[in-house]
Order: sequence, then structure tokens, then C-alpha cells
Amino acid sequence: VNRKENYYWDMYQQIYEDINSFGRNENGGMDRLAFSEEDNKAHDYLARLATEVGFLVKQDGAANLWITAKGSDESLPPIYVGSHLDTVPDGGRFDGTLGVLTAFHAMLLLQQYAPKRSVTLLVFRCEESSRFSCATIGSKALAGILHGDRLKQYQDNDNISLFEAMENAGGKPALLPEGLTEERKLLEKGFGFVELHIEQGPVLETSHTAIGIVEAIAAPYRIKVQVNGMAAHSGACPMHHRADALTGAAEMILAVERLGRQYAEQSIVATVGNCVVPNGAINIVPGSVEFPVDIRGIDGTLLKQVAGEIIQQLKEIGEKRGLTVQLQLLSAEEPVKLSSKIADLMEQTCREIGVSSVRMNSGAGQDTMYMAQILDAGICFVPCIKGISHNRLENVTEETMLDGLEFMTELLRRSCCRC
Amino acid sequence: VNRKENYYWDMYQQIYEDINSFGRNENGGMDRLAFSEEDNKAHDYLARLATEVGFLVKQDGAANLWITAKGSDESLPPIYVGSHLDTVPDGGRFDGTLGVLTAFHAMLLLQQYAPKRSVTLLVFRCEESSRFSCATIGSKALAGILHGDRLKQYQDNDNISLFEAMENAGGKPALLPEGLTEERKLLEKGFGFVELHIEQGPVLETSHTAIGIVEAIAAPYRIKVQVNGMAAHSGACPMHHRADALTGAAEMILAVERLGRQYAEQSIVATVGNCVVPNGAINIVPGSVEFPVDIRGIDGTLLKQVAGEIIQQLKEIGEKRGLTVQLQLLSAEEPVKLSSKIADLMEQTCREIGVSSVRMNSGAGQDTMYMAQILDAGICFVPCIKGISHNRLENVTEETMLDGLEFMTELLRRSCCRC
Repeated sequence: VNRKENYYWDMYQQIYEDINSFGRNENGGMDRLAFSEEDNKAHDYLARLATEVGFLVKQDGAANLWITAKGSDESLPPIYVGSHLDTVPDGGRFDGTLGVLTAFHAMLLLQQYAPKRSVTLLVFRCEESSRFSCATIGSKALAGILHGDRLKQYQDNDNISLFEAMENAGGKPALLPEGLTEERKLLEKGFGFVELHIEQGPVLETSHTAIGIVEAIAAPYRIKVQVNGMAAHSGACPMHHRADALTGAAEMILAVERLGRQYAEQSIVATVGNCVVPNGAINIVPGSVEFPVDIRGIDGTLLKQVAGEIIQQLKEIGEKRGLTVQLQLLSAEEPVKLSSKIADLMEQTCREIGVSSVRMNSGAGQDTMYMAQILDAGICFVPCIKGISHNRLENVTEETMLDGLEFMTELLRRSCCRC
Repeated sequence: VNRKENYYWDMYQQIYEDINSFGRNENGGMDRLAFSEEDNKAHDYLARLATEVGFLVKQDGAANLWITAKGSDESLPPIYVGSHLDTVPDGGRFDGTLGVLTAFHAMLLLQQYAPKRSVTLLVFRCEESSRFSCATIGSKALAGILHGDRLKQYQDNDNISLFEAMENAGGKPALLPEGLTEERKLLEKGFGFVELHIEQGPVLETSHTAIGIVEAIAAPYRIKVQVNGMAAHSGACPMHHRADALTGAAEMILAVERLGRQYAEQSIVATVGNCVVPNGAINIVPGSVEFPVDIRGIDGTLLKQVAGEIIQQLKEIGEKRGLTVQLQLLSAEEPVKLSSKIADLMEQTCREIGVSSVRMNSGAGQDTMYMAQILDAGICFVPCIKGISHNRLENVTEETMLDGLEFMTELLRRSCCRC
């Protein structure tokens, strides 16, 4: 009860409620897709609130929101915090939003301690890939790796381009990447960047840990697999005459799992998230099957090695079964090592406030990946119930929300007042 | 060359060409769906041709076509031959049609031998399940197991009922099943029923055999399987925290194959023809998967035993992996033993004309299954190229067509003239 009072819980809950009024659907899920009217309204709401409490507000060329609480000593490089407000379709109330509102609330609470260092909250645009099949747009733009022309190629289901959507939200996509050069230079001189996010996995909850301090963000290595055999009549074709693409694919899917498990201790995960049988029917021996493979790891060399072993096994299974296997590389990104300075700051903060923490890696991509290309950056996770995310059932405990508030407030106090 | 002349190859080819002008699509595939305008035209064409050559023609209450070549001795029970003219969408030129036209042509050729016994060609309606999700309608109706009311429940994609379609083709569905009692009584007194059909599988081609004499038709035992685990983020959920419905399903699909192979010598086939991952995506650990299992065999007791073993393994795999497995029985039919009298007649015929034959079973269902409920019935297969069927690439060699003609003509000669 005391903690709730100390951290102005009711006010925090009210802001949380207000933000999630934008895009809540009838099932209680969040439909606040990137650059949608609801997303823009949520940005507007937070900008207005920030202005009302005396923070400085601006929008950059990618329509990211910059909310600054000025410190008394302008010679100190500012600290950046942030996350995103957009959601997947029928998503949850915490993915991204928890990080933004925890940081915003901590900035408000910080003011009672007369901070010397300025704090800037970055609300990144379009972290989720759901609408435009491209993730972490706002942070990529700040890192200078998104060009205006390419933004025209990404389109949503209604053929609205990312370019149009960004422009409609007040961004200036035509000026990218140069239009964000000034912001990038500001960031480069910053003290560091800190994101708080729900884990979206079960590790913290299972181990009863309050804060997960992320040391590295895994990169996905993705391939599309097409297996071709020979379609046949399920009744008329004897077992030993078959070139069944689905039983071949099944063996391959198990090989992906087996290799993922074999390297699990080294933070590898390997997943087949879909399986499509064109013209599949109960009375047909499948002639072809398609499935994607998503392999992630935090060690780029190991990741490539495991991907190589998986590809080798897929080919061997195909050969053994008389199936052709076509592989298409979809992406091969590099894992990102995060700043140990920021990780240490987060760990000290946990010790100070007396909550448990653990060093871990992130299997999911985050805006922090791109901030890490510009300045010292780090991200911490808080547990979410049963690890459920990207789902209206996504939830966190009050305890977790309070831990996050206490952690972020203390982190800002350490870095902005004791300097 | 001699054989072609003996069997009036050019005339046969012309009839074949004429029939397949009804419903041929631009890709060369056949779109002659049951009771479609094209199907009705094909029936009309054959009825007209039969009348022109002096055969007796009638249509029964299910719109099946009866074409009779009268023999000189009316005291001899007639022999029945037949197959179907309807095709799957974009189907081939031989499935069903080869049997009808081989029999029709053999009836023509038979006339030079002054047959004593009458021959009746039955052209069954709606053998394929493609249009109304119900197969072998015409033969089921003759067997007395199709009721007019139930025909209203089967509808095509345009909401036209089987009842309407049958009526439109000249049938009298409202009078079923009683409306075919007279025909059934005629059939019961018949000498026997013989169907010729393409194999729709690779066995005959692979073993270089001209005629497959079917001893039993397998029955399908079909179940629908739903596997439920827990959807999770493919990056954020470590391998040992997962309840992956797809890797579970993959293990189950391989178990189905393994048991099918284990009992292959006893004519069991077991197939998973489809696999659906609802909300499947590259970055999601699948939370649920659905797939059908089709198990077939010619020994009803063994079929149930194998189905039981498969179900047991699916449950064990689910339990081991922490997945729930829901099973729904779709159908459990009885295999059909065919007449040894007809099989012997077919074998003697092969010996007489000097073509190779083999006793085998049919994994696919056929109209003969329902004729076998009424009188001595048998079906023989001829090879189709690479076993391809239900596909516009379906094909047979000229050699196969001539073997079929010679076989059917000799079979009719043996049974209609040497008596």
C-alpha cells in the first residue's frame, strides 16, 4: 500500500487507462496498429499531457515523439529512455506501452529530486511489423538506415504505404535519412539509452525474478523451405511407393527442434511457426509442403553454424526420402551486444531498491537494437504472466508494475541527480 | 497395327474424343463434374450413339444410364458392366471414362460373335465426391442406401442440392429408395458385374502388369486430429519452455507413417493429407495444429486394430509433450470382399488373351463396392502412367487401352457366347 502511495499509483493507472482507451476492441484486446488513427491519438494524448506538466515536446521526421524533462545542468549529456505505443492486432496492453508509461511516470516522479541531467523519453513509431511487415521503423530511421524511397514499398493490406502513413502522422519521410541527422547527432552525445519492456517469454516469471537485464539481443536467421514429392491417391498408393512431402516435412520440423534443443544452453532457439500443404486433402498423399524456419542466437558465429547444420539435415532428409528441398534465405541478421555500462547501471539500481535481477538475452528484436548503433544502450525486461504476449491475454501483476516504476525512478535518480 | 485394326481403334478413338469434348478446359483438363451440363451432355451423347447402333437405352431414377445389347437367349441372366463419366475439377480423361468406353466398344465388337447372353452397360452418376462431398451416388442409389430426403442435404458450392441436380438430369430423387427397387431386383438376378478402371496408383506400371484383378476394396477409417499447445514468441520462448503444437503434430504424422509402413505387407495404408496451423507465422511457436488421418485396409479387424494403435500413439506423443489431443472419428467403413467367381473369370480372360495379371486390392473406393452388395461383382485395374490420377496429367498408354479392349471383349465373349 505504501509503495502505491509513494509512486502515485492512482495517477499512473489513470494515464494507463487513458492511453489504452485508444484502440481497445470489444474483446478487451488492443488494435492500435502503427500510424493508425488510434496510434496517432495515443501519441497526441501523451504529447499534450507532457506539455501540460511542463516537459518539452517535439516530433521528429519519422514521427517519433521526443518528450524532454530538462535538468538544471545543461552541460550534462541527457539520458534517453523509451519504447513504443503501437500494438499488434488484438494485442495486449503492456507490450511497448508499459515501457513508455513507466518512463513517463518516472520522469514525473524524478522532478521532486531536482535532477541535474535532462531526460528525454523517445516514443518510437511502428515497432511492430504487423501492419507494414517491417519492424522497429522509428528506431531504424534514427539509426539512419531507412530511406524515404524504400518506405513507399512497404504497404498495409489497404495498400497504404508506410511513407503515406508516416507523413499523415506528421513525419517527413521524403527527407529521410538526412532529415534525422541532427537527432542522431544529439543521441550520439547522450549519456545512454534505457528501455523497459515486458519479457514476452516465461523465464522471469518461472524463476521469480523482478528484472531481466539484457546483455545481447538475438538476431533471426530465417529460411523458407519448400519440400516437393509426388502427390498421390491416399488409398491407391502403397506406403513404399510414396514420395510424401508432409512426412518429409515432419521429419525436418523435428530436426529443427532437435538442433534448437541441442544448442539451447547456448541461447539458440529454432522454430517452425507454420506449415502449409497446398491442395491438402484427407485423401491425398501430399505432393508439396512449405514451412518457414526461424533460428535465433546471440552469438553470430554459432547462429550461422547452427543454421548450417539445420540446412544440412533438411537436405539429408530430403535426399533420403526422394524429395526435393528448395531453400530461400529470408534474412540473416547480426546479434547485438548491448552496453555493459547501461547493464551495470541497471544492476546497481536493482541492488539499491532490493529487487532480484538476472542477466539474460533477448530472443525478440527491440528498438534498443538500433539505439545501440548510436549510443550506449540497454534494455531490461519485467515478467509477464505465463509469458503470454502479442495477445489480448497479455498481462502483468501490480507487483511487476510497481517494481518497474521503482526501478525506473531510481535509475533516473542515480543517473540524473548523483552526478 | 493388327491389334488396332482388329479393335476398330479409329472408331474407338473418335468416340473417346467426342465424349471428352464435353467439359474439356483450356488446359486440357476435364471439368465434367457430376450432374453438370457437360456431364448430362456426355450421357446424352452416349445414349444417342447406343440407340443408333441398336442397343436399348433407359435412364433409372438416379439418372444412371442403362445401355443393353440384347442376346439371343433371354433365359440367360444378363452380365452387367460399367463405370462413370463424371470427373473431378481439372481431372483426367481416363478415370471412369476409360471403363465406360472400353465396355461400350467391347459390346459393339461382341455383336460379331452372336452373343446369347445380354450385356448391360451401367453408366453410374456422381462417382466423384468433388461436387457434393458424397461419392458413388448412382451405385449407392441402386444398392438402396440413398434416400431422397438426404439428397437435399448435400449441396455444391452454389447451394444446388444433389436432389435438384439429379432431378434436373432426369432422375426421380423424390421416389428414392423405392424408385429403384425394380432395377435392384433385375441386378440381383444378373450373372455378375464387371468394372474396368485405371489403377490411380503405381503398382501395375511398376510391375509391368497389364491387368490388376481386385479381390477386395479397402475401407477408409478417418479421424480428425486437433493438437493444442501454447502459442509463444519464437524468439522469447526458450526451447525447454515450449508446448509446440507443430513439433508434436510432426511426431504424430511420422507415427502414422511408421504404423502404415509396419502393416504395409497386410495392405494397410495410412496417410496425413493435410496440416493446418491456425494463425501460423514465422515468429510464433504454434499453439494449435489440425490434421486428418486416413487409414485404409481390406481386413476390417486389422484396420480397426491399426487405427487403435495409431490413436494410442497420438495420445502418448501428446502426453509426453504436454499437448492436448482431440480426436474426432469421421468415418469407419467396412472393407468389401469381391466375388471370386468374377475374379476367376477375369483371370481366365487374361490367360486366354496372353496378358499378364496380378491379384491385388483397391485402396480407392469404387462403384463396384455397392454393386457387390447386390450381385457377384468385380473390378479390374489397368495401369496409368506414373500412377497419376485426379489430375489433368492422368494418362495411359495406347498399349493399355488396347489391352483393356481386348480383355473386355474376350471377357464378354467368354460369358455371353460360350454358355
